Amino acid sequence: MQSSLPHVKTLDDIREILKDLPPLSQDALDQAEAREVQLTKPEGSLGRLEDISHWVAAWQGNYPPRMRSIHCNVYAGNHGVVERGVSAYPAEVTKQMVQNFIDGGAAVNQLCATFDVDLQVHEMALDVPTKDMSQGPAMSDEDCAEAFFYGMTTVKDHTDLMCLGEMGIGNTTAAAAVAYGLFDGSVATWVGRGTGVDDHTLTLKTNVVKEAVEKNKETIKDGLDVLRCLGGRELAAMAGAVLAARLKNVPVLLDGYVCTAAVATLEATLPGALDHCLVAHNSVEPGHQLICEKINKKPLFDLGMRLGEGSGAVLAVGLVRSAVACHNNMATFSDAGVATKES
Amino acid sequence: MQSSLPHVKTLDDIREILKDLPPLSQDALDQAEAREVQLTKPEGSLGRLEDISHWVAAWQGNYPPRMRSIHCNVYAGNHGVVERGVSAYPAEVTKQMVQNFIDGGAAVNQLCATFDVDLQVHEMALDVPTKDMSQGPAMSDEDCAEAFFYGMTTVKDHTDLMCLGEMGIGNTTAAAAVAYGLFDGSVATWVGRGTGVDDHTLTLKTNVVKEAVEKNKETIKDGLDVLRCLGGRELAAMAGAVLAARLKNVPVLLDGYVCTAAVATLEATLPGALDHCLVAHNSVEPGHQLICEKINKKPLFDLGMRLGEGSGAVLAVGLVRSAVACHNNMATFSDAGVATKES
Repeated sequence: MQSSLPHVKTLDDIREILKDLPPLSQDALDQAEAREVQLTKPEGSLGRLEDISHWVAAWQGNYPPRMRSIHCNVYAGNHGVVERGVSAYPAEVTKQMVQNFIDGGAAVNQLCATFDVDLQVHEMALDVPTKDMSQGPAMSDEDCAEAFFYGMTTVKDHTDLMCLGEMGIGNTTAAAAVAYGLFDGSVATWVGRGTGVDDHTLTLKTNVVKEAVEKNKETIKDGLDVLRCLGGRELAAMAGAVLAARLKNVPVLLDGYVCTAAVATLEATLPGALDHCLVAHNSVEPGHQLICEKINKKPLFDLGMRLGEGSGAVLAVGLVRSAVACHNNMATFSDAGVATKES
Repeated sequence: MQSSLPHVKTLDDIREILKDLPPLSQDALDQAEAREVQLTKPEGSLGRLEDISHWVAAWQGNYPPRMRSIHCNVYAGNHGVVERGVSAYPAEVTKQMVQNFIDGGAAVNQLCATFDVDLQVHEMALDVPTKDMSQGPAMSDEDCAEAFFYGMTTVKDHTDLMCLGEMGIGNTTAAAAVAYGLFDGSVATWVGRGTGVDDHTLTLKTNVVKEAVEKNKETIKDGLDVLRCLGGRELAAMAGAVLAARLKNVPVLLDGYVCTAAVATLEATLPGALDHCLVAHNSVEPGHQLICEKINKKPLFDLGMRLGEGSGAVLAVGLVRSAVACHNNMATFSDAGVATKES
């Protein structure tokens, strides 16, 4: 049985939840740090792997950290703004790729198989794209809250680690609009080539993002308004999943630009709302690195990827599994009879 | 049965082999590139994962690339130069850590278990340290060739991927001397804190490296002389393993500073000798990044690690497994009925 979630019908219900989120477990963190210095290696020599295992324990609220049940949730949505010609692929590809996920043919399927991750794909009303954000809000308050709450319900109890991903033709345009809406700056720095648009389309995309933010400026008061006006259903679902994960003690691996932009709307509303999340990788989308700086997250690796669908997040599962395996299973100096430093 | 290896009794035998190494398979590479563009993702969107799968196929000389049999060879050696006080740990720790590897308690054991990698640990005459390189050559020609040949014999037939690692108190001093001997520059840029020496010991270590290179200068004519005079048995074994891997069509993941310095002696002798190798990670040891630049290798990730024992190389196995799984198992656009770009 799933544990109960707070009631969410409107964005105000989410604002209410965001007033007070559970912190990490200091006790689990202390236990992790106490064991770390006893393990048979020079102090700090596993670098970020050490921090990762501590992070898992602290946010699971549990010691030792567990890596039994790892889930990847991928949300798919369609975007009215695609009518403006912002993508290199037609909107039909969203549905076709969802079928590819179900059939096991996409990159994320192979990555989940490699790291023993359970994959769930969620279609978010693909036949009813969101409204064109360059003409007004992409979603009504209730529609956005519904997608957000749907995302919340997809976080299973007793999940040890969750990966987030998305699929949606046009959604790097939404991500750019969300980032520009949240952080301002120069619009062009937030707009990248997505699936690979040409120079002409890149200029068009940049103009559309600018129009969308200007058109919705008066409506936007906080991060959740940005999510509603400039996001999309899969972005709202990812934000909802991150919030539910916090309530359920589940650490989260974020993916690339669209994923990170979506959940940055929470951080903008409540600083610290993403403390239970790590950004898995640095995307080729130029806005992704900027947004990571804004939310103070250092991606774990940079392999020049820009695929979405949770691929970067699932790839990082190998690192998290490694970190926890080292932390939990290495011998201590006294167990192994290894001399310590300068002994 | 192991396939036959060339006869190696002296460094000249190795120099003979290094005159002519087998190239990659252009046919396997062509097949990999031809399939890549058909897979259900925007072109190039898996970034370096695409290059990795092509690299595996090209150097296995086989298509599709295989990931069935992955080995990690860790070589342990002791160093006469430790008498100079260059390490934070006593020389006994080398043997104690070898026992820890055998007992399954080290970091590399947990990483091998995580990624289904077969671990072999090789003691290289631990009770007979190499000579103090600050007084003259660390090894005789025959001793170095013997350790090198031993490393060659440890590469099993039908290995799909090999990881290299080492253990040896004092061996970052050897690595620094090898790097300074090969590439010159300012001695201090090559010397780091290893397992964590203090400022006083860092200065001493730097002076010892400088002395060692000056003392052996007249003897050194090429990269293999550097390996003999300034390296150690585990360094020679790693270089031997890399050479045998090339002869047996085995792609190699290199680890950190000591590993990369050891095999750079081959690249210095024959440019291109390391084309079948990738550097797994960027070590905290400051010389590692410099040496990677010198041999034109870009590490796959940087997690602030500095442990050695093959830990970075084995951690990268997750990435290589992922790359090959995506390449081999993803659906093509036509298989999946997904529309291609601008279709």
